[in-house]
Amino acid sequence: MPRINDHYQKLQAGYLFPEIGRRVRAFAAENPDAPIIKLGIGDVTEPLAPAVVEAMKAAVEEMGVRSSFKGYGPERGYDFLIDAILANDYAARGVTLASDEVFVSDGSKCDSGNIQEILSADSVVAVTDPVYPVYVDSNVMAGRTGACDDSGRYAGLVYLPSTEENGFMPAPPRERADIVYLCSPNNPTGMVASRDYLANWVSWARDTDALIIFDAAYEAFISDDALPRSIYEIDGATECAIEMRSFSKRAGFTGVRCAFTVVPKPLMGTNGAGHKVALNGLWNRRHSTKFNGASYIVQRGAAAAYSPAGLEQTRAQIAFYMENARLLRDGLSATGFTLYGGEHAPYIWMKTGDGLSSWDFFNKLLTECHVVGTPGAGFGPAGEGFFRLSAFNSRDNVNEAIARIQKTFR
Amino acid sequence: MPRINDHYQKLQAGYLFPEIGRRVRAFAAENPDAPIIKLGIGDVTEPLAPAVVEAMKAAVEEMGVRSSFKGYGPERGYDFLIDAILANDYAARGVTLASDEVFVSDGSKCDSGNIQEILSADSVVAVTDPVYPVYVDSNVMAGRTGACDDSGRYAGLVYLPSTEENGFMPAPPRERADIVYLCSPNNPTGMVASRDYLANWVSWARDTDALIIFDAAYEAFISDDALPRSIYEIDGATECAIEMRSFSKRAGFTGVRCAFTVVPKPLMGTNGAGHKVALNGLWNRRHSTKFNGASYIVQRGAAAAYSPAGLEQTRAQIAFYMENARLLRDGLSATGFTLYGGEHAPYIWMKTGDGLSSWDFFNKLLTECHVVGTPGAGFGPAGEGFFRLSAFNSRDNVNEAIARIQKTFR
Repeated sequence: MPRINDHYQKLQAGYLFPEIGRRVRAFAAENPDAPIIKLGIGDVTEPLAPAVVEAMKAAVEEMGVRSSFKGYGPERGYDFLIDAILANDYAARGVTLASDEVFVSDGSKCDSGNIQEILSADSVVAVTDPVYPVYVDSNVMAGRTGACDDSGRYAGLVYLPSTEENGFMPAPPRERADIVYLCSPNNPTGMVASRDYLANWVSWARDTDALIIFDAAYEAFISDDALPRSIYEIDGATECAIEMRSFSKRAGFTGVRCAFTVVPKPLMGTNGAGHKVALNGLWNRRHSTKFNGASYIVQRGAAAAYSPAGLEQTRAQIAFYMENARLLRDGLSATGFTLYGGEHAPYIWMKTGDGLSSWDFFNKLLTECHVVGTPGAGFGPAGEGFFRLSAFNSRDNVNEAIARIQKTFR
Repeated sequence: MPRINDHYQKLQAGYLFPEIGRRVRAFAAENPDAPIIKLGIGDVTEPLAPAVVEAMKAAVEEMGVRSSFKGYGPERGYDFLIDAILANDYAARGVTLASDEVFVSDGSKCDSGNIQEILSADSVVAVTDPVYPVYVDSNVMAGRTGACDDSGRYAGLVYLPSTEENGFMPAPPRERADIVYLCSPNNPTGMVASRDYLANWVSWARDTDALIIFDAAYEAFISDDALPRSIYEIDGATECAIEMRSFSKRAGFTGVRCAFTVVPKPLMGTNGAGHKVALNGLWNRRHSTKFNGASYIVQRGAAAAYSPAGLEQTRAQIAFYMENARLLRDGLSATGFTLYGGEHAPYIWMKTGDGLSSWDFFNKLLTECHVVGTPGAGFGPAGEGFFRLSAFNSRDNVNEAIARIQKTFR
């Protein structure tokens, strides 16, 4: 039998969301009448914007006619989408990028899992704790860690605890780190980085020759226009940062699948001989060798999210979710919970209170309120004692969930 | 600056198809009136089948209505598609597989590039020569090879030349190999494996504890029903083989993006401690950690390709391409070319003749006939002296290409 990649055996049992799914299915099987409300995985619930629907239907029609049929597209994405991204997401914020610095993909989960491939297996990786599990797991699989300890931390990773004390915004590490993953607005804490906070990280990365992998999947939820939406709004970031964005949450594309990654051309790494190598070329090679472009139909849908009607409709969706977040914040804080986030992100980070572990709280919420959330400990040991609720649901379900939680925890 | 993955620097300049694209664009820029016919990259040209178009339009409509909206789907794919795959592609051929042995993805290029991640970095990899470049490049990137020599071969890989002498069907190697990539119907040679040929490989793999990665992306082009369409038609293959299939060529999905990989549960690897580990679980972990499911809309389209109307329409497309292949075979053999393939595959493998290198032949065909093909040497040194033509084009273009080639090479 062939030898396996032994690093996989270091992974903790069950990726977080499959584990939650298993527990929910088991509960539902035993309690088929329980009206479960899911505020867990952070999946959108509102239908696609009409402008997006119309664009994708037109694209499907195009594909059914020989003269307008599209086969393989450019691996990096169609210009019609890249141009819309550059104009709306960057030029409008004063950031100038070239079209060959943008790589369209089928999802940020893929991009954030794959990006580490272009970097040395010896790299020291820093992550916040709690953290989106893909950053960690993809580096475990690639052999950049040792074994996992009882607390859920892997040897060899640098963990940066996000705590109440630091406002869930950890400072750069004192020890060496080659790569750091930052996410703002943050999943899972729902907190957002200020301009000064990002500027401090950029300054650290430039001083220490480190790389920032900046996940801005929730950028569209930032409600204060003075806050940075892209790390490239910080001077010098194009020399030290990769940025990832997604249509999943901003346009409801979790089941449609489209995202993009920006790798600026000034961004350099060094090879074993000490020579500079542009990361843009390496990612282009990875992208064109192991990926074959996002679906044409999907890219047309994503581009339509930038049309005047598409912008108006998708902004209304985000406003709807953010009103859900406000209701959750108000309703649960009235019950005495201590809450964070939810002002520039669709996530609320609540303290479980009463000494409940986050999985105990998960079980209590599931069995007593029939509400599904995400245990903070699933995102890392510093998430213990916290719980993530998402604002992605119907207004009725959000109000019902609030009422049930208020009743149980009053 | 962060250290890069130095293995990337072993890669030869330019992935084959981007290199062809660059040469064609340069020629077209200097010769804007040249009516170029592309028989190169192997991209389909016929529009999507009406049944597929209708299903995808209906799926887009569903996504625009709250009650039928779909967010994240199962990472492994929806049951409606997996059930159709199991019934049509396997049960109908006497092969019984379970639904959790099928992993739906956004493309076979991704799957064939990613599958090596679950295997040890020390594995010895065998490939045929010529070969689909992704098998090689993904292993170079992962560090399973040394440097590339002047002939284009990487140290550490086991190359199995596909030659006229062995009918382009190389036998298993005498030296140790842990993983072998086989492709039938073959890209680029257009040749197809017999039952006995595959049985010999399965026997070898079982005897030597090797893994076969079987790429059946062109299975739908097999015109003789007695030939195996799946490696699982061979006894014992579920214990030694992974199989990949794609909707790209069978249903014209190159721009739509859908494929699947089968990892049977009896298929085992060994870990560093010598214990057996199921590859199915490892691939499931990889798939659910670094991928987030194929687009719902796309999966609905793929499932429609299995409906009675979808099967009839997509089979008609394949018959159309195969008639193109017959015309190319007849027309070019009449001009004196020696030709292979094209009977159970949409590719014709022709000898360049006259001592022309395959890139010389590429340039001659481009500049004199304005026809684009693929140089055999781009698929490996044993492809030198050969050239791949694809049957994917309109009937008029195929006939015109034949006429131009006949005129030039008469």
